[in-house]
Amino acid sequence: MKKICFLPVVFVLCSIVSAQPGHTPQAEPLPAGFKPASTNTFISQYPAVNAQTHQALFRVSAPEANSVKLNLNGSHDMKKDEKGVWWITTEPLVVGFHYYAISIDGVQVMDRGSEAYFGSNWESSGIEIPEGPEGDYYRFNRDVPHGQIRSLYYWSDINGMERHVNVYVPADYEKNTDKRYPVLYLVHGWGEDENGWSVQGHMANIMDGLIASGKAVPMIVVMPSGDIKTNSDIRSASGSITDIYVKNLIPFIDKTFRTYTDRQNRAMAGLSRGGMQTTSTVFSNMDKFAWMGTFSGFFMGGMGRAGAQAPSVETAFNGVFKDPDVFDRQINLLFISTGTEERNPKEQVEALKAHGIKNIVFHESQGTAHEWLTWRRALNDFAPRLFK
Amino acid sequence: MKKICFLPVVFVLCSIVSAQPGHTPQAEPLPAGFKPASTNTFISQYPAVNAQTHQALFRVSAPEANSVKLNLNGSHDMKKDEKGVWWITTEPLVVGFHYYAISIDGVQVMDRGSEAYFGSNWESSGIEIPEGPEGDYYRFNRDVPHGQIRSLYYWSDINGMERHVNVYVPADYEKNTDKRYPVLYLVHGWGEDENGWSVQGHMANIMDGLIASGKAVPMIVVMPSGDIKTNSDIRSASGSITDIYVKNLIPFIDKTFRTYTDRQNRAMAGLSRGGMQTTSTVFSNMDKFAWMGTFSGFFMGGMGRAGAQAPSVETAFNGVFKDPDVFDRQINLLFISTGTEERNPKEQVEALKAHGIKNIVFHESQGTAHEWLTWRRALNDFAPRLFK
Repeated sequence: MKKICFLPVVFVLCSIVSAQPGHTPQAEPLPAGFKPASTNTFISQYPAVNAQTHQALFRVSAPEANSVKLNLNGSHDMKKDEKGVWWITTEPLVVGFHYYAISIDGVQVMDRGSEAYFGSNWESSGIEIPEGPEGDYYRFNRDVPHGQIRSLYYWSDINGMERHVNVYVPADYEKNTDKRYPVLYLVHGWGEDENGWSVQGHMANIMDGLIASGKAVPMIVVMPSGDIKTNSDIRSASGSITDIYVKNLIPFIDKTFRTYTDRQNRAMAGLSRGGMQTTSTVFSNMDKFAWMGTFSGFFMGGMGRAGAQAPSVETAFNGVFKDPDVFDRQINLLFISTGTEERNPKEQVEALKAHGIKNIVFHESQGTAHEWLTWRRALNDFAPRLFK
Repeated sequence: MKKICFLPVVFVLCSIVSAQPGHTPQAEPLPAGFKPASTNTFISQYPAVNAQTHQALFRVSAPEANSVKLNLNGSHDMKKDEKGVWWITTEPLVVGFHYYAISIDGVQVMDRGSEAYFGSNWESSGIEIPEGPEGDYYRFNRDVPHGQIRSLYYWSDINGMERHVNVYVPADYEKNTDKRYPVLYLVHGWGEDENGWSVQGHMANIMDGLIASGKAVPMIVVMPSGDIKTNSDIRSASGSITDIYVKNLIPFIDKTFRTYTDRQNRAMAGLSRGGMQTTSTVFSNMDKFAWMGTFSGFFMGGMGRAGAQAPSVETAFNGVFKDPDVFDRQINLLFISTGTEERNPKEQVEALKAHGIKNIVFHESQGTAHEWLTWRRALNDFAPRLFK
């Protein structure tokens, strides 16, 4: 029997086949109080975050670069050490998730230490700033039953392509194989995609917790692509995306999952431009939805068009609010939310209430801006109000 | 009734909250024959690919950079035009998926136009080179029923953390709610993660086609994280990862899905280091698996350790092949595959056959190296052989 010789070629193979050199963990210990961010790739020590001070520490190895900057709440110069490694420690940051970029000699790039988070139309870096007990509702809790997020494709004859959609089913979905469920359609914001709510938003952790505690009824949550990828396509896309939602997506979901198909069991919500899609979709399909939410995305009239007429409560959205009693009989809940540090629709909400609309709830996220902590909090407040 | 004034602030909001400026599509038309790569983000024209010549065209805007290179099958200088945009057109590339990086003044970064593909331990750029009819088996086919990929977390008491796993269920899984299914555990390679098979590998398209045509039996495919993220952890991780697979993952899957739980209905396969994990896991748990595949990952003995003894067929893997009849009674299929342009285990396979092992199948992917086309072809050949 011939002896088979084996050469240790595997590591050689790996470096040959990789377009990039291996990224080995940095040897230096992190400064006291700092830990690798939870948003990092598995082996990256940087960026690191300090859970007490809420500061973040960034590191970029770029010996040949002339200028390296951190773009996170503005542009900040990083400082080069004698090894050609650039460093910066931030001011304290708001808790939650932040997109950021590194600028290398003027080119905005993703930080190598971060996982990819699709935002602003590219695969962006992101960093999660941890906090105390408040954030428990959006963290993984091993002590509650967990739903599943399912990845599916459906065919759209409206734009002639297969479209990706993520669908959350509650933990008991497969145990009760005769049970039907109400459905929430939940849309992402500008420059993001159908993964935003499940990845940046931690929606499965939020829903698992709400359902396990009995605060929310078990529901299916459908997270489609909103096609809101550019600054210029909101008007053209909003028309066709409504058709795709109503004519392609809803029938596909109702065929594929055990749903209740009546309007009392169908809700729609979205963040930012997804909120604007929600108003345009629901208000033009009142026979299909009875519940709605718009997170940092409620703007009466105009849809941001320059020169648009400032609408009155009576004329906004083609007069949907004109008769408050008619509106309240159709819509069980109009949930409007915002962060206190961003444009606040409080005046519009007050005007709607003064006009006589009763089924309206206004939610403010204290101390947060147009960011994911605002929307995690909004979902956590909104979902328990549905289908009751 | 007070009139509510609305200012078109939405676009302003978006630019304030984005860490990065919006990435608007490039206005220039693409050269004749070139189309945006299917691996690009939704709005990116570049990189572009030529389906006839199999060339790719890359574009990087970097007016202030001194040097911009493309790292794809080696490092290639890009050329700067008068607007500060750098360009390169490649030689013809092998069909299928390739990782690549852009180097900006010596820093390896992800190309902004690409979606993110986790490989070589970071969020890498990737480009798909299209081909003719051969590739149909891994493309989305709207005319067949589609399975779902489900995202789940399970708790591991072995490493004290929740672990992510993707699970493919065949199209008929929910229609036949009493039916049970065999299970294939399918592991990624070095530097990749649990998304590799579903994203880079298009495994759902492959399985949907095989099942719809009757070539493969309907099966569940479980794609865990193999923890094989660094060059240095293969030895330490292989021990514990086997325990995680056998003691944590398999019981979780059998509890969560309608599986057959006997060894005749359980297979394991993997690519590259995932293939090495397959041999180490299956050969130490012969009571739990009856089918196995190792794609570009079959290395008898030593596991790449420098100075390891070159093993004989009789001593490799603790003597699992010593008695060929015993081996063939336990393992219904040992599938070994490779690309013809990478290290080829043909000699080892011949030695095993000469030794008397019968349940062995050797598959060569013509003209491909240590890359995803090799593994898509391997899965397409392997899956129909299972559970029959």
